[in-house]
Amino acid sequence: MSEHTYRVTEIVGTSHEGTDAAIRNALARASQTLRNVDWFEVVGTRGHVENGVIGHFQVTVKVGFRLEDAGS
Amino acid sequence: MSEHTYRVTEIVGTSHEGTDAAIRNALARASQTLRNVDWFEVVGTRGHVENGVIGHFQVTVKVGFRLEDAGS
Amino acid sequence: MSEHTYRVTEIVGTSHEGTDAAIRNALARASQTLRNVDWFEVVGTRGHVENGVIGHFQVTVKVGFRLEDAGS
Amino acid sequence: MSEHTYRVTEIVGTSHEGTDAAIRNALARASQTLRNVDWFEVVGTRGHVENGVIGHFQVTVKVGFRLEDAGS
Amino acid sequence: MSEHTYRVTEIVGTSHEGTDAAIRNALARASQTLRNVDWFEVVGTRGHVENGVIGHFQVTVKVGFRLEDAGS
Amino acid sequence: MSEHTYRVTEIVGTSHEGTDAAIRNALARASQTLRNVDWFEVVGTRGHVENGVIGHFQVTVKVGFRLEDAGS
Amino acid sequence: MSEHTYRVTEIVGTSHEGTDAAIRNALARASQTLRNVDWFEVVGTRGHVENGVIGHFQVTVKVGFRLEDAGS
Amino acid sequence: MSEHTYRVTEIVGTSHEGTDAAIRNALARASQTLRNVDWFEVVGTRGHVENGVIGHFQVTVKVGFRLEDAGS
Amino acid sequence: MSEHTYRVTEIVGTSHEGTDAAIRNALARASQTLRNVDWFEVVGTRGHVENGVIGHFQVTVKVGFRLEDAGS
Amino acid sequence: MSEHTYRVTEIVGTSHEGTDAAIRNALARASQTLRNVDWFEVVGTRGHVENGVIGHFQVTVKVGFRLEDAGS
Amino acid sequence: MSEHTYRVTEIVGTSHEGTDAAIRNALARASQTLRNVDWFEVVGTRGHVENGVIGHFQVTVKVGFRLEDAGS
Amino acid sequence: MSEHTYRVTEIVGTSHEGTDAAIRNALARASQTLRNVDWFEVVGTRGHVENGVIGHFQVTVKVGFRLEDAGS
Repeated sequence: MSEHTYRVTEIVGTSHEGTDAAIRNALARASQTLRNVDWFEVVGTRGHVENGVIGHFQVTVKVGFRLEDAGS
Repeated sequence: MSEHTYRVTEIVGTSHEGTDAAIRNALARASQTLRNVDWFEVVGTRGHVENGVIGHFQVTVKVGFRLEDAGS
Repeated sequence: MSEHTYRVTEIVGTSHEGTDAAIRNALARASQTLRNVDWFEVVGTRGHVENGVIGHFQVTVKVGFRLEDAGS
Repeated sequence: MSEHTYRVTEIVGTSHEGTDAAIRNALARASQTLRNVDWFEVVGTRGHVENGVIGHFQVTVKVGFRLEDAGS
Repeated sequence: MSEHTYRVTEIVGTSHEGTDAAIRNALARASQTLRNVDWFEVVGTRGHVENGVIGHFQVTVKVGFRLEDAGS
Repeated sequence: MSEHTYRVTEIVGTSHEGTDAAIRNALARASQTLRNVDWFEVVGTRGHVENGVIGHFQVTVKVGFRLEDAGS
Repeated sequence: MSEHTYRVTEIVGTSHEGTDAAIRNALARASQTLRNVDWFEVVGTRGHVENGVIGHFQVTVKVGFRLEDAGS
Repeated sequence: MSEHTYRVTEIVGTSHEGTDAAIRNALARASQTLRNVDWFEVVGTRGHVENGVIGHFQVTVKVGFRLEDAGS
Repeated sequence: MSEHTYRVTEIVGTSHEGTDAAIRNALARASQTLRNVDWFEVVGTRGHVENGVIGHFQVTVKVGFRLEDAGS
Repeated sequence: MSEHTYRVTEIVGTSHEGTDAAIRNALARASQTLRNVDWFEVVGTRGHVENGVIGHFQVTVKVGFRLEDAGS
Repeated sequence: MSEHTYRVTEIVGTSHEGTDAAIRNALARASQTLRNVDWFEVVGTRGHVENGVIGHFQVTVKVGFRLEDAGS
Repeated sequence: MSEHTYRVTEIVGTSHEGTDAAIRNALARASQTLRNVDWFEVVGTRGHVENGVIGHFQVTVKVGFRLEDAGS
């Protein structure tokens, strides 16, 4: 059926390197347990600071994935 | 116990017909796997356009459902 | 005097049919008691679900109406 | 080149019928002058009221379209 | 690996007592099924009124929990 | 008729005790003049400070109540 | 009793002169029918344009006024 | 045809005098190149400061204008 | 001079007890170093969870205080 | 070094005259104690009403100023 | 005349590399057809995922450019 | 005492390189004068464009730091 339904889940990826790496880590982890991941949207960027330097970046992403029909 | 707890999940329903049908499709799909669905809230309306006409409407809805006690 | 003043009130219309009917119901009810209704703005769309289907749509609209001069 | 660029323009479609028709009218008009229209997002729903009934619905949509390379 | 990933889920806790108790109920219920719950954020406070008094408070909280590695 | 219409009014309750008491005060006062109060939503929490301590909490709540049919 | 309750109503003032005059017009009109008006907050500034010049400014203000005790 | 379509464009007007003058400058400039300008909405007010005094006010306005039919 | 100027600073109060205590702690700490604290506004409520129970509530408040004239 | 850093502080200016004067008062006061003030952004407009007329306008502005190097 | 007017247009830049490259691509494309581009503001970051990895980043930027006088 | 209080200040970091470098510059500068910096949150990303290329990125971050007890 071509009228797909999607679910959106919220994931926080972290990285010592930067914001893009945190996004990539979030998506990599999401893809371990979710099939058909289709898009993401960044909804927040935060981070922890330790001794005056950034310990890690924390990027919150909404991740959309296509639901398969429950009956199939 | 009368002090219920609810969970809210985010679903994107789609439809070629219009926004109400997309909402109904989202709820129909959610009810295949979730029990005790109680309310929804529309949080976004988008769509794809192909050759100058709307291919499908995409309505993002938050869906609230009552959690049953984990111990039961 | 041509410098009109308006008041904005918030109404929630409901309908079993869909969002447009809920908006029309809100405006119809507002017009029973308010004169000079001039515009509306949709500020939220929610609904109740019963046994897996939408029981009714609830659309919150801000309704603007022109105030007549208090002294007239 | 596969790294496309898009522009987003804001259009207000109107209709006596309802919100979906207002969206369709906005997209139909946008497609008269824009090529490669790809998606839309509803950002506001308002309307005018005359003599207690809705005169027309006004739906504001952001319309995204792919830019062709300026040099081509 | 020290670059953790978190998931955020949305829970509505309710209480006859007040807002803090509703938050505590939400977290207590979440901890029945989720491991490694780490933080929460209040995103909405509503309630039902019956015969002129508050029947129960409903506090919507986002709950963040650390994901364990899928392969472990 | 089962398709109810509701009106939403905005009330600021105050209390020397705390935020929950301010909410309860707002609802108690609203119920003196409004029938069929059904729900509330907190939309803001502020307060005044006098000599370094909180003089009173001010909680703004939207209060929804069912409209009776104008003709009845 | 020193724990006052306030109500907030939304008014649109208009003026050919400018935004401050539109705010003043909104408050002047509100004070014709409301006692104990205490504060306002600007929540939107719009206007109509006719033949390339601003016909009038429309400023939406939330107006807070102290409620007297219903039993008095 | 009475079902008009409008486009919304975003303009930043500036003025040494104040916010109203900045709005008027934005509209005057928009009317040099756009026909059928119908309304505006203020979406932001900023400014530059030089040597402790305001150099100029910058008011961002959304400007709505009626589209003529592309085929006419 | 009666035209006062205020400054707004953002403080996060924490408490093991609840949200009101966290607000009070924020104001008590602010009053140790700021004179003329006049009002506060809650802008966020979060918290940490340890072993399934709330470790502490964190309430972010904007705190407004009157500036004394710099020349005095 | 040409990669400047700025700090943003929040000031509430007040005036009996109007919103522009309140903005100017905020900036004048900020410049008494801050060097290198560079820009401002209006983030809220409120006011007090006394006996049916506006007692004073209160405009909240974010004020940005360039930080000098701490070591210089 | 020193009282400039600016227009703001919304562009979505994409990149396989990351968010900064997507911003740079948006600006590079905008500068092909717009003169006097002066500033940008990021208003959204999304992306597509294909087979568990990010296909491309999509960053929506508002781009401000100075309008030349229409009569020149 | 384990019930810490934090203050949040807003800093704009800039960089010719990109958004992550601008965040790092903001934190580095904040740590020159603030002790106990604990976290940050990105609240805006803008930049200047010169001759069609990005002159510098400007990232606004809220920086949270733990307050030491005023009496110590």
